[in-house]
Amino acid sequence: MGQEGTSGEPGHLPVTVDGQGDLFDAGCPTRHLLDRVGSKWTVMVVLLLAEADSVRFSALRRQMAGVSQKMLSQTLRQLGSDGLVSRRVDGTVSPPAVHYALTPLGSTLVPVLGALKQWAEDHMGEVDASLRGPGSGTGGA
Amino acid sequence: MGQEGTSGEPGHLPVTVDGQGDLFDAGCPTRHLLDRVGSKWTVMVVLLLAEADSVRFSALRRQMAGVSQKMLSQTLRQLGSDGLVSRRVDGTVSPPAVHYALTPLGSTLVPVLGALKQWAEDHMGEVDASLRGPGSGTGGA
Repeated sequence: MGQEGTSGEPGHLPVTVDGQGDLFDAGCPTRHLLDRVGSKWTVMVVLLLAEADSVRFSALRRQMAGVSQKMLSQTLRQLGSDGLVSRRVDGTVSPPAVHYALTPLGSTLVPVLGALKQWAEDHMGEVDASLRGPGSGTGGA
Repeated sequence: MGQEGTSGEPGHLPVTVDGQGDLFDAGCPTRHLLDRVGSKWTVMVVLLLAEADSVRFSALRRQMAGVSQKMLSQTLRQLGSDGLVSRRVDGTVSPPAVHYALTPLGSTLVPVLGALKQWAEDHMGEVDASLRGPGSGTGGA
């Protein structure tokens, strides 16, 4: 506190000197990154790509029940911009096939999002019980 | 597939028999739960509550730079409905003080969201570099 904003390149949000972000800093892009990587579609894409060397758009869409073509495109584009997913077009087939794969950076997300998915699946029953009955989440031994 | 929806209590989305969710099932509430717990405000609240027995609304708001009163209220209400956070009103002071704490279920989220925060903070610099230069995320050794 009390700093006068000397780093102020306009439009470039601050990351600390060593490249480390700070979630609790309102000016740090870490919180936006966290919202992106913690979304259901991102989790699904990253975990599906973790299971193969590369996956085609149509195969991803088939395995992600309920996703629209637009939403899947957006999710893949954002993951590409973030450097987490790479895209390769195979023009030797017609129509050209688009393959997606995790980058090395994207691979570092796999254990983290795997644990998040596991937590949600393991505790869905308890959360569901809480949602259906006020107080049922705080009772018991 | 081919099942005729025999469990069909209207408005009650399916969780499998053993209380286990399935993220890849479009009808399973796990994906909505995942979107809720993976959001930046939820991550901040859960990690701040993990550091104390209970925390007042005003103290949470002070530590979560950039959050609005409305957004923090919404986040805490949702965490309460999900059975992850409990609320206690201390009427012996004026105005009454509202204290929030993690439930035992909420405490199970701490290591998962701690790892997610750590990942985002550790890799923000690499993501930022990718966002600023196409191709910079896939180059290098």
